[in-house]
Amino acid sequence: MAGKVFFSVSMSLDGFIAPESPSVANFFAPEKQDDPQVRRWMAQWTELQQWIFPQRFFRENLRLGEGGEEGLDNDIARQTYERTGASVMGKRMFDLGEQSWPEEAPFHTPVFVVTHTERDPWVRPGGTTFHFVNDGIERALEQAREAAGERDVRIAGGGATILEHLNAGLVDEFSITLSPVLFGSGTRLFDGVDASRIALEPIRSEPSPRVTHLTYAVRPR
Amino acid sequence: MAGKVFFSVSMSLDGFIAPESPSVANFFAPEKQDDPQVRRWMAQWTELQQWIFPQRFFRENLRLGEGGEEGLDNDIARQTYERTGASVMGKRMFDLGEQSWPEEAPFHTPVFVVTHTERDPWVRPGGTTFHFVNDGIERALEQAREAAGERDVRIAGGGATILEHLNAGLVDEFSITLSPVLFGSGTRLFDGVDASRIALEPIRSEPSPRVTHLTYAVRPR
Repeated sequence: MAGKVFFSVSMSLDGFIAPESPSVANFFAPEKQDDPQVRRWMAQWTELQQWIFPQRFFRENLRLGEGGEEGLDNDIARQTYERTGASVMGKRMFDLGEQSWPEEAPFHTPVFVVTHTERDPWVRPGGTTFHFVNDGIERALEQAREAAGERDVRIAGGGATILEHLNAGLVDEFSITLSPVLFGSGTRLFDGVDASRIALEPIRSEPSPRVTHLTYAVRPR
Repeated sequence: MAGKVFFSVSMSLDGFIAPESPSVANFFAPEKQDDPQVRRWMAQWTELQQWIFPQRFFRENLRLGEGGEEGLDNDIARQTYERTGASVMGKRMFDLGEQSWPEEAPFHTPVFVVTHTERDPWVRPGGTTFHFVNDGIERALEQAREAAGERDVRIAGGGATILEHLNAGLVDEFSITLSPVLFGSGTRLFDGVDASRIALEPIRSEPSPRVTHLTYAVRPR
């Protein structure tokens, strides 16, 4: 039995999953860290993701050391990781990640990157292998399903890649961690969603002191 | 002791509090009900507000008859009504409401309409009186606070009026009932929010089987 296709993101209360991108390239580079646009991006991103940093699972997975919080937020972070047998990712998210992931990238499964760039698989220590797929999202998803076996396939991001899968009817369910923050601008999760074809069924709504974890099944309408 | 200033709205998961408005005027008129734009507006609006229609409080308040559901959704609808000693409303919301409210308008308190139109107070049976305020939101809010006494002032809507109060630092807290629906277009609650000046503190997150009721305190940053 094949697993589900899902995505799981943190979203601001005004619907953004990423701050407005700095116009500078390589904004993770040390010499860019004083750029006001880069600082604003970092501050907003940190606020959006604040719920996850103190979690025991997050610290373990990024090898940040022992300890950390346990509870609902931690359980959900761990479950999201454990259900995932393979991920699909857009080129832009990969490019940002390549600048910022530690050597042991935090996926520990195959990751299929949808891109026009041809490149040999990039094997990282710890079980993450990035495969570069040049023939579209359906083919990337097919390979991810095969690699995931009975586990689920996560559409990792970014926003455009998630939306492409959602509008194509390829997503079974999704989770949004709603953070108590307003961005005002940035990448909107649902910008361009084909609302006339997508119905949602609430599956779970789980509040923690920091955030609310919302899970919906996607149905055609 | 004065009460709080709050707003309480139903919002789609993609951040809209009203569907895209039909370009036809008087769209509640019987002869407009077959217009496809009007039908779409009605269908989306109904889906957004679906959680409230079966509630006992909603039926009582609109004199729709006995019975109805009880539980969290009903309690929240009733508490929102009972805490409200006066409302502030924009001209556009008033104009739409004037076409659609029953004779006994469902506020049962003073309502201060921010408008450039001069008009004598409009007294409705059942305790609602609409006052037309021509000198801006601060003056309208001041009158509403006075009328509300120890109860709270609700910024009833629409979106632009809510945002004007929020950006001016006049809102103490707000509640969003998050509905499992995507609109794709319409009136966004937070479009134009001054995110750099507003911090949110989560107060309550209360899931029901239909929706999630989120309450935040507004803090300056």
